[in-house]
Amino acid sequence: MTAKFIVIEGLEGAGKSTAMAICQQFLKQHDINFVQTREPGGTPLAESLRDLIKQQHTEQVASETELLLMYAARSQLLHNVIRPSLEQGQWVLADRHDMSSQAYQGGGRGLPESTLCSLSNIVLNGLKPDLTVYLDIPPAVGLARAKGRGELDRIELEALSFFERTRARYLELAKQDEHCVIVNADQTMDKVHADIVAALAQFYKRVFG
Amino acid sequence: MTAKFIVIEGLEGAGKSTAMAICQQFLKQHDINFVQTREPGGTPLAESLRDLIKQQHTEQVASETELLLMYAARSQLLHNVIRPSLEQGQWVLADRHDMSSQAYQGGGRGLPESTLCSLSNIVLNGLKPDLTVYLDIPPAVGLARAKGRGELDRIELEALSFFERTRARYLELAKQDEHCVIVNADQTMDKVHADIVAALAQFYKRVFG
Repeated sequence: MTAKFIVIEGLEGAGKSTAMAICQQFLKQHDINFVQTREPGGTPLAESLRDLIKQQHTEQVASETELLLMYAARSQLLHNVIRPSLEQGQWVLADRHDMSSQAYQGGGRGLPESTLCSLSNIVLNGLKPDLTVYLDIPPAVGLARAKGRGELDRIELEALSFFERTRARYLELAKQDEHCVIVNADQTMDKVHADIVAALAQFYKRVFG
Repeated sequence: MTAKFIVIEGLEGAGKSTAMAICQQFLKQHDINFVQTREPGGTPLAESLRDLIKQQHTEQVASETELLLMYAARSQLLHNVIRPSLEQGQWVLADRHDMSSQAYQGGGRGLPESTLCSLSNIVLNGLKPDLTVYLDIPPAVGLARAKGRGELDRIELEALSFFERTRARYLELAKQDEHCVIVNADQTMDKVHADIVAALAQFYKRVFG
């Protein structure tokens, strides 16, 4: 059995950190060896890029620049963490991955699909998550939660319409992807928790038979 | 008459800084309003990326990561400096541009031409220099000069064979490009100076008739 690649996706305030904790617990309970990543970031250079992406700048950051920085960070994480881990039989549990760029820079920023597709092909070279859990939430609800956590970063400060376009693209992609489970994150914590565990249990059953 | 885009290209130690100074003098003498850029860099964010590209890291920097960072910096410079300047009628005098990525990351690192081509298309969107002066020098000669200037950066520390592949790609590209003049930089300073001025004078004549 080859190692699996699980990704948690969703807007700000959708509950990705909680979902990551639920997944960790599930994998530990099933004695699965795994590494955890976050994007952008996850290697020293990629974390420096995360800072550059999220901070406010004295100049406007072009959408293409933002996209290229996301893929530079992803490239570094793939080369130095994700691929070597999977090759060594360790599962990878990722807080965001390629779907984030498709949704935020493709949907939110409105960059052409052909641009996203070219960069995906260059950087991912065919690698796809085995399971994506997409936490769906209305942007206004997610942003209110994110605001409660402290100061918002450069991307979190975008207009509500940006996040509505991002969510719409997320939903499109999630529905097209047979390896993606959509979890309604606008429910009680208990219900969201149960839905995530159900998605993991079903995936586990598919993998281990 | 639309503003022109002049690029100086070449290996480490080929004499790009001197060539930039000669071009500046030429443009000033002809009362041409211009801005000067360098790559990677030229905006606050792009200069931060320059630092990340050139410094040593505790992890290996994947070739694709390096390439994406180069294009992220170029995208930012194009959006915030090169395009607005040309649109406002200012000439642009650039210390390196796209040909550097083609030569270093394409030739030197051996990344596929299709990858370079995709990124060029996304970022440049058809913009091409009106004049490129490529300073050709044997890598051993250039590197000896660069070493004399102080400590070498991460890319300058590559093996000689890396720079030989880079030079070979430079020469291929320069020969294919009708807007590129190849200057033999392995001559006396006076002769190199004269060749650069001749290239500029010929370009000026072509532009102003």
